[in-house]
Amino acid sequence: MTRWSEGFVAVDWGTTNRRAYAIDAAGQVVDSDKADAGVLAIAPGGFPAEVAKLRARFGGLPLLMAGMVGSNRGWIETPYVACPATLADLAAKLCHAEPGHAAIVPGLSILDGDRADVMRGEEVQIFGAIALGAVAERTTICHPGTHTKWIAVERARITDFRTIMTGELFALIRAHSILAPLLAGEAVPGAAFRAGVERGFATGALGAELFSIRARALLGRSEAADAPSFASGLLIGCDLRSGVPDGQDEVVVVGSPTLTRLYAEALRHIGRRPREIDGAAAFVAGMRAIAETIG
Amino acid sequence: MTRWSEGFVAVDWGTTNRRAYAIDAAGQVVDSDKADAGVLAIAPGGFPAEVAKLRARFGGLPLLMAGMVGSNRGWIETPYVACPATLADLAAKLCHAEPGHAAIVPGLSILDGDRADVMRGEEVQIFGAIALGAVAERTTICHPGTHTKWIAVERARITDFRTIMTGELFALIRAHSILAPLLAGEAVPGAAFRAGVERGFATGALGAELFSIRARALLGRSEAADAPSFASGLLIGCDLRSGVPDGQDEVVVVGSPTLTRLYAEALRHIGRRPREIDGAAAFVAGMRAIAETIG
Repeated sequence: MTRWSEGFVAVDWGTTNRRAYAIDAAGQVVDSDKADAGVLAIAPGGFPAEVAKLRARFGGLPLLMAGMVGSNRGWIETPYVACPATLADLAAKLCHAEPGHAAIVPGLSILDGDRADVMRGEEVQIFGAIALGAVAERTTICHPGTHTKWIAVERARITDFRTIMTGELFALIRAHSILAPLLAGEAVPGAAFRAGVERGFATGALGAELFSIRARALLGRSEAADAPSFASGLLIGCDLRSGVPDGQDEVVVVGSPTLTRLYAEALRHIGRRPREIDGAAAFVAGMRAIAETIG
Repeated sequence: MTRWSEGFVAVDWGTTNRRAYAIDAAGQVVDSDKADAGVLAIAPGGFPAEVAKLRARFGGLPLLMAGMVGSNRGWIETPYVACPATLADLAAKLCHAEPGHAAIVPGLSILDGDRADVMRGEEVQIFGAIALGAVAERTTICHPGTHTKWIAVERARITDFRTIMTGELFALIRAHSILAPLLAGEAVPGAAFRAGVERGFATGALGAELFSIRARALLGRSEAADAPSFASGLLIGCDLRSGVPDGQDEVVVVGSPTLTRLYAEALRHIGRRPREIDGAAAFVAGMRAIAETIG
């Protein structure tokens, strides 16, 4: 049998990108790789060859994979584990796609009366942040992204979560809406961003606040350069309004530094204490913890 | 001088469509025309020729035009009239593009401290609904569309309004989002629509509620055919939450019958009394009232 803890490759295989980290027996990242080979870039039936190439790239080490590779658009659909769930629950339900050589970490689901939600990939980062000792015993963690997740954690168990389509809505509005010509620039965490956060958090009225960007531009009441930052702040403010629990002071934000920086600024602006955790480091820590669990 | 009241053509010239109605001295629509010749379909510099063709089509009658034809993407940019505004204010600020032959009705603007908003075209329908005797002395009117308008009216004066990008967001999500494959069908005002209205009106959390459509589909907790109606209800519920005033029982909804039907059902579901007015009839009534004012 493979001893995963003797060395493996942790693969974060998402919709549009794939990142791989070779981890040695001491738990150190000794090699890594990043490719545009997200699951949508792999032809149907093309996964076994792609996996073999990846294994060869890393000298035949076993591959522990998470993310959309386990979805119905990925290699092998791996059933969701229902919350509440621990890291040990994920490890017990791995899909051993090529036993001893390749395994897929399942995602998590919520099914509670009328509520339904799913995630794939973020759960590894959350358990990693817990393994890094960065998470309070009972808290809600923010994972910003295309589909931002707000994840309730209790004693190292994910008890609940909620997805908000913040990043996707921002991308749609930027690419295809009547506001697109105004939103071409970069969003930066300055005064316009904070003004957007304030509006979004106060009203949550995304559709109404968005149009004001165009009206202010038409009426000469705004700096064109401010529009992308205001829009980003608005969307993140609406996101916080839905996601951040009342009365929770410290909010751990796990994800890509570009996004955690914006969310941290927004959280500070509404009076919370953000703590940023790099998503890549959290992913490696989470995969190591799973590898240690399966031995 | 032309006597507009002796007969003219009322032209509703929007972004993607153009509708024209020949109105005789008795105020009857005696001919009409609909074309895909929205302002975006007219090449820069192409408006005088297009206007001449339209005038010829209607036997040389003078043209009274409203909508995006007066925007910076239209024929001649016609400055907004600031609210509060009456129909007489619009008539006094017409852009006489070809004196006696072609005039453009200005749009309306709001500039009040931090608030900014604009409209072009809907104002004619609102004054038309007032002319038809369909509007209470003091009320807020809904004009649903790509950019839904909620318009406050006091004694035949438009005092305030607010734009919500409901139709545009629905179109973007349907065409380009991860939900697109689920939203191809038609939205109908049944149980799934009302469930969406209820969620949107209760929470306003568009980004969060939207993702639940995908999660329920992935977890087998919804009928695929219900998704477009639920999504439409959700967006309209969020719209009502921002737009419909507390304590206002009757809500006049002016616009295309397809949309006023959905908004009417949503309003009934949250306990209001909708009154639907056909936007085309309101447009004709509004343009007639302007023509009578200018003589």
